[in-house]
Amino acid sequence: MNSPSDVGAIRPDGRRERGERTRTAILEAAARLASVEGLEGLSIGGLAEHLGISKSGLYAHFKSKEELQLATILTAEAIYERDVIVPAMEASPGVARLLALTDAFFDYVRSGVFPGGCFFIANSLDPATARRGRVKDLLARLQRETLEGLGEWVREAQELDGIASGRDPRHVAFEIDSLMTGADRNFVLFNDPASLEDGRRAIYRLLSAVA
Amino acid sequence: MNSPSDVGAIRPDGRRERGERTRTAILEAAARLASVEGLEGLSIGGLAEHLGISKSGLYAHFKSKEELQLATILTAEAIYERDVIVPAMEASPGVARLLALTDAFFDYVRSGVFPGGCFFIANSLDPATARRGRVKDLLARLQRETLEGLGEWVREAQELDGIASGRDPRHVAFEIDSLMTGADRNFVLFNDPASLEDGRRAIYRLLSAVA
Repeated sequence: MNSPSDVGAIRPDGRRERGERTRTAILEAAARLASVEGLEGLSIGGLAEHLGISKSGLYAHFKSKEELQLATILTAEAIYERDVIVPAMEASPGVARLLALTDAFFDYVRSGVFPGGCFFIANSLDPATARRGRVKDLLARLQRETLEGLGEWVREAQELDGIASGRDPRHVAFEIDSLMTGADRNFVLFNDPASLEDGRRAIYRLLSAVA
Repeated sequence: MNSPSDVGAIRPDGRRERGERTRTAILEAAARLASVEGLEGLSIGGLAEHLGISKSGLYAHFKSKEELQLATILTAEAIYERDVIVPAMEASPGVARLLALTDAFFDYVRSGVFPGGCFFIANSLDPATARRGRVKDLLARLQRETLEGLGEWVREAQELDGIASGRDPRHVAFEIDSLMTGADRNFVLFNDPASLEDGRRAIYRLLSAVA
């Protein structure tokens, strides 16, 4: 998501590369912070204080709070891809991929990579943030893509493994996503990993329903 | 939840009664505001401005932001009881009650009584608020009570109507709650009532599974 400019790529002194590394480190801290404080709580000043760097240093990377929020969401998305989507892609298509996705999702929530549970569930339901303009539009687009991708994997599992035969794969995808959402919500509220097992168990059950 | 003091009850000039009415009106506005702005956004000053009354007038009712937040949650709970629980209680025990609950829940979300979708889903996942002290504890307690009550109704439906036979009623309750949560989340993100129909359809399907 950060496309280094040609100018940066040919600079011999590594300055551009170091700048990208700094930007990435800032955004990863911002994503962790936003899963606890909310995206709305992400101000340039607040993040600078949290990181122990100057406000002007941060302004060199992000021109506005909105730009910082959007970049933070894309950073969280990259972490989600790495921790949840890639392990699923490495499994065989069909039910095996959906089970790998389920396991990877609950491991990702439990791992604490985001201290406030799943970044996207927390922030898409954050009343203070998620209603507004480009931030909300980006969160909505990512959720649509998640549901569509999941629907595609369900369709493959129907074809290859005969689960949920005759059902609209989008409906099954909605149910899987909801069980992840509900389990994450309870996990955060109750601070109890048993809530994640509730979600995992329910999705496994859903995926074992062979017509 | 507001226990009028004896002193107030015997006052002949109605002052105490008017005070209670004012308090209720303030809290209902606060609950609507919190479903959009988040409980963390509920400051005494901000709410006073929103209502067009003086800050000192509000301080007469609430001594602190936390007290205002807790009272707001209990007001939202009373609205939830009125709009969701009472219609379900009026239906016969068993599957009929669970279906009435489902219909009432999605009507309540769609009605816009809280502009940000279900108050409790929004605020229990609000990263800025829901992690903290007494506010979080109250939200967690209400969610536990919701899941326990729902589990009890599922158990009745198992006995009376033979649905989901042999399953742990708490697991079925978790699934119903998750489908409501996921549908509410998508409804708010996509601003599309079709998301609520996804939830209703999935819960009806779950409740039609006779062993």
